[in-house]
Amino acid sequence: MSQTRTVNRQITLASRPVGAPTASDFKMLETAVSAPAEGQVLLRNLYLSLDPYMRGRMSDAPSYAAPVGIGEVMGAGTVARVETSRHPDYRVGDLVLAYGGWQDFTLSDGSGVSRLGADMARPSLALGVLGMPGFTAYMGLLDIGQPKAGDTVVVAAASGAVGSVVGQIAKLKGCRIVGIAGGAEKCRYVIDELGFDDCIDHRAGDFPARLAAACADGIDVYFENVGGAVFDAVLPLLNPKARIPVCGLVANYNDTALPPGPDRLGLLARTLLTRRIKMQGFIIFDDYGDRYGEFLAVMADWVRDGKIKYREDIVDGLENAPQAFIGLLEGRNFGKLVVRIATSDTPA
Amino acid sequence: MSQTRTVNRQITLASRPVGAPTASDFKMLETAVSAPAEGQVLLRNLYLSLDPYMRGRMSDAPSYAAPVGIGEVMGAGTVARVETSRHPDYRVGDLVLAYGGWQDFTLSDGSGVSRLGADMARPSLALGVLGMPGFTAYMGLLDIGQPKAGDTVVVAAASGAVGSVVGQIAKLKGCRIVGIAGGAEKCRYVIDELGFDDCIDHRAGDFPARLAAACADGIDVYFENVGGAVFDAVLPLLNPKARIPVCGLVANYNDTALPPGPDRLGLLARTLLTRRIKMQGFIIFDDYGDRYGEFLAVMADWVRDGKIKYREDIVDGLENAPQAFIGLLEGRNFGKLVVRIATSDTPA
Repeated sequence: MSQTRTVNRQITLASRPVGAPTASDFKMLETAVSAPAEGQVLLRNLYLSLDPYMRGRMSDAPSYAAPVGIGEVMGAGTVARVETSRHPDYRVGDLVLAYGGWQDFTLSDGSGVSRLGADMARPSLALGVLGMPGFTAYMGLLDIGQPKAGDTVVVAAASGAVGSVVGQIAKLKGCRIVGIAGGAEKCRYVIDELGFDDCIDHRAGDFPARLAAACADGIDVYFENVGGAVFDAVLPLLNPKARIPVCGLVANYNDTALPPGPDRLGLLARTLLTRRIKMQGFIIFDDYGDRYGEFLAVMADWVRDGKIKYREDIVDGLENAPQAFIGLLEGRNFGKLVVRIATSDTPA
Repeated sequence: MSQTRTVNRQITLASRPVGAPTASDFKMLETAVSAPAEGQVLLRNLYLSLDPYMRGRMSDAPSYAAPVGIGEVMGAGTVARVETSRHPDYRVGDLVLAYGGWQDFTLSDGSGVSRLGADMARPSLALGVLGMPGFTAYMGLLDIGQPKAGDTVVVAAASGAVGSVVGQIAKLKGCRIVGIAGGAEKCRYVIDELGFDDCIDHRAGDFPARLAAACADGIDVYFENVGGAVFDAVLPLLNPKARIPVCGLVANYNDTALPPGPDRLGLLARTLLTRRIKMQGFIIFDDYGDRYGEFLAVMADWVRDGKIKYREDIVDGLENAPQAFIGLLEGRNFGKLVVRIATSDTPA
């Protein structure tokens, strides 16, 4: 089924996952499209961003954002067109970036909505390299990671939306960049297309030893987006004065309990102390929202000049969002995962 | 036995401790006092600083400094007088700060030696509030901790050399400061004499609940110098954007193995991420050596004006250094622990 003008398909949270989410944790509803009240716009969502952080919002454990309620529409960044406007700042046909959620249509009072240039050749990039993931890579690496020429920088999920940008920016700054990815095909892409110095397949055997061999001079910046076994392999390789920006821990998102011991909390603290390491978590728009314009100006130039490459993994159809999201947590996507909701710009 | 002009008593490392150090891990030797070669000075040590970091140097596990070798003299900061000089920069009678070690006399080529003003009323302060511990408190709190007026700042070992200064500086910056100390007497001193807003006795029952009650608005800066059960109680109270300078983990120094599970390494990383926390280790002279002059100018004024108070716990006699050090790791000292080696300024 594809997008129409009259039905609002909505994917809601049916139940809180225990461990990895399954299809039954989501439920699609069909509701009538609402008309905007005075001061509102009706947005028709064209592209939907799927990102690992959404797993956290499916849980009600304390996290960095309020959870999605049971029966509520799953949240997500979207690229949308203004379908009807009773808001002075928006006109019908405007292309915007919004937090429209997993649905065809969204009513908005304009908060959190920003206009995209009508000339934007590829609007979906506002969800990837020019959007939240690219911004996360840019600020985390440059502001917290503080890479210097000659540093060894390591990032996991290296073919993904964040990791691919981290590595390419580090390369522009004169660093040696070692990626980590799942499978030989992704590793080839990371080295051959993105220009990383090396890429280690974490699914092949003896991952810690191969990572150590690729980081013969130790690790100066580890951009943390996965946690788990990757962090365990990174920890002994960290150099004095290393920096660890932490933007995600996808390996742990499905955990239902703490792993068995021994307890290494004190070991981590001791490593930070004896090697004088900085480890810092950040939430991109909360911590750096006022620098988005700076990022966008720089990154748009880099993308236009071919200095930063990107890869999108586009899934067609809102109804396929749950399976695509489940696959994202397993690393089955290859590039920035985006759902194309509207296969035509003029729906039935 | 007291200091003489001819015998150099030296306390050496006899064996590497397993767990807490015992008296048999140290051995006192008596050697002849050496004459300086050209370019050297002979220093007579007057005061010896005992500090928790020395426990790390008794082990050969990787740490932030090379270990003391078996049979070698234990290292330590000392306040000393130049006894004989064949070095152009030093004259007999000069009062200096040096890394003289646990012994009566030290030969030096001048590296790491700095002259103290002849008018210094209380030279031992160069080992405490005006020396390494005070400098650690100053830079860790101000540069990494970045306290703002109204923040809640927590520090353990609050009556000790570092903690007492952390709290008083935080108070000068307009923070609410909650100390943690062992025993009612220390807690009274921390509140009544040092002016902390509160102080929690970690030896009394229900420590985590009492700490939580004292930090009703959460914790914005936790100055980490102990680790262990204190950190466990602090972790759930940390506010978004909290800062954790890490200068020591004395609770763990005697550990012989990692504690039993569950493994909370990932829990710590997740806490840093979801609350956007910065945790950063530092080694004071390695990271901030070039700012010692700035510190000393500010702190000397504060001490002179009574804005920063200090307390010394002075033990007489080099031979008592091992027991005093063992007590330090158990929290038996009350104030900055210093050994007075020379009970007279003119030895026999």
